[in-house]
Amino acid sequence: MKTQYYTAASLDGFIATEDDSLDWLFPLGDVNETSYPAFFREVGALAMGSATYTWMLRHVVKPDTGTGATWPYTQPTWVFSSRTVPAIEGADVRPVRGDVRPVHAEMTRAAGGKNLWIVGGGDLVGQFLDAGLLDEIIVQVGSVTLGAGKPLLPRRLVGDQALRLQSVQRFGPGFAELRYEVARRAAS
Amino acid sequence: MKTQYYTAASLDGFIATEDDSLDWLFPLGDVNETSYPAFFREVGALAMGSATYTWMLRHVVKPDTGTGATWPYTQPTWVFSSRTVPAIEGADVRPVRGDVRPVHAEMTRAAGGKNLWIVGGGDLVGQFLDAGLLDEIIVQVGSVTLGAGKPLLPRRLVGDQALRLQSVQRFGPGFAELRYEVARRAAS
Repeated sequence: MKTQYYTAASLDGFIATEDDSLDWLFPLGDVNETSYPAFFREVGALAMGSATYTWMLRHVVKPDTGTGATWPYTQPTWVFSSRTVPAIEGADVRPVRGDVRPVHAEMTRAAGGKNLWIVGGGDLVGQFLDAGLLDEIIVQVGSVTLGAGKPLLPRRLVGDQALRLQSVQRFGPGFAELRYEVARRAAS
Repeated sequence: MKTQYYTAASLDGFIATEDDSLDWLFPLGDVNETSYPAFFREVGALAMGSATYTWMLRHVVKPDTGTGATWPYTQPTWVFSSRTVPAIEGADVRPVRGDVRPVHAEMTRAAGGKNLWIVGGGDLVGQFLDAGLLDEIIVQVGSVTLGAGKPLLPRRLVGDQALRLQSVQRFGPGFAELRYEVARRAAS
């Protein structure tokens, strides 16, 4: 069982524009032709911040448009937010706030031996990292620069092989996948 | 003859810390065990900004320390600076300011058919890019995050395959090399 940060980012280290747009991302390639399907099959529970959840709601589920699109995850999903988050029909969404450590323990119990996916944003991932709870970072580096935006991981992770590159893979002209093992620095 | 931006960067897109330190970089691996020697053999002329030049002066040449270290490039090197730059004995350094286009033409003449290396910083590279004069971006992505620092390339390069990933290569746990072809967007 691993706790993984799997995300796409620009070459200059942003996971979204300042206004949370991912419009730059989708022309780069089909996520189903990357390692995503194999990664996702092993996910037993998810956690995300409220900006990520709101993005999903607006751009994937779109409840007001009548497109009938549904929440894409059957796994339980913890949403970190200091405010109330709108529910989505048929989605196992568990609002939560505060310390990531008890949530990680709950996620572990719920995941049945499968992996935990910390979807983002970067600051939520940083909180799991700070608590010594992050095992892997998998970045699909898109062939774009954004110049500004939401940071991949607002932390300083330097020295003593804090990150160890495990593999690199090219998915067409649009994506380079980089996989890192995270040295556990704090007690979990 | 190609105009290339070859640099190392952190996973989160910084080429140096806020105070121009590269101390995070050197423990990651030996540059001579990467593609750097093969890249450098094909370089006929260099251009860099004043911060990069000052860094070289302080950390490589160190004229006041009596270590006898010398300027590492025999190729002519244009240094963009609005101020006077200190000369280095035995170095073919050509101070310049302003528009990158006539400098690019001079560099091309001096390079004798070899490649032009735009060393950095990111904003100088952006000026060559804006002028449609950049052909390739080669980034050694180091296995670190810095959280803040000098940006890799402070530009928005999105859509219409502005960047095309050509190859990926792993150099140990410390470096992932990503090579991009740049679509020429402006008249050169």
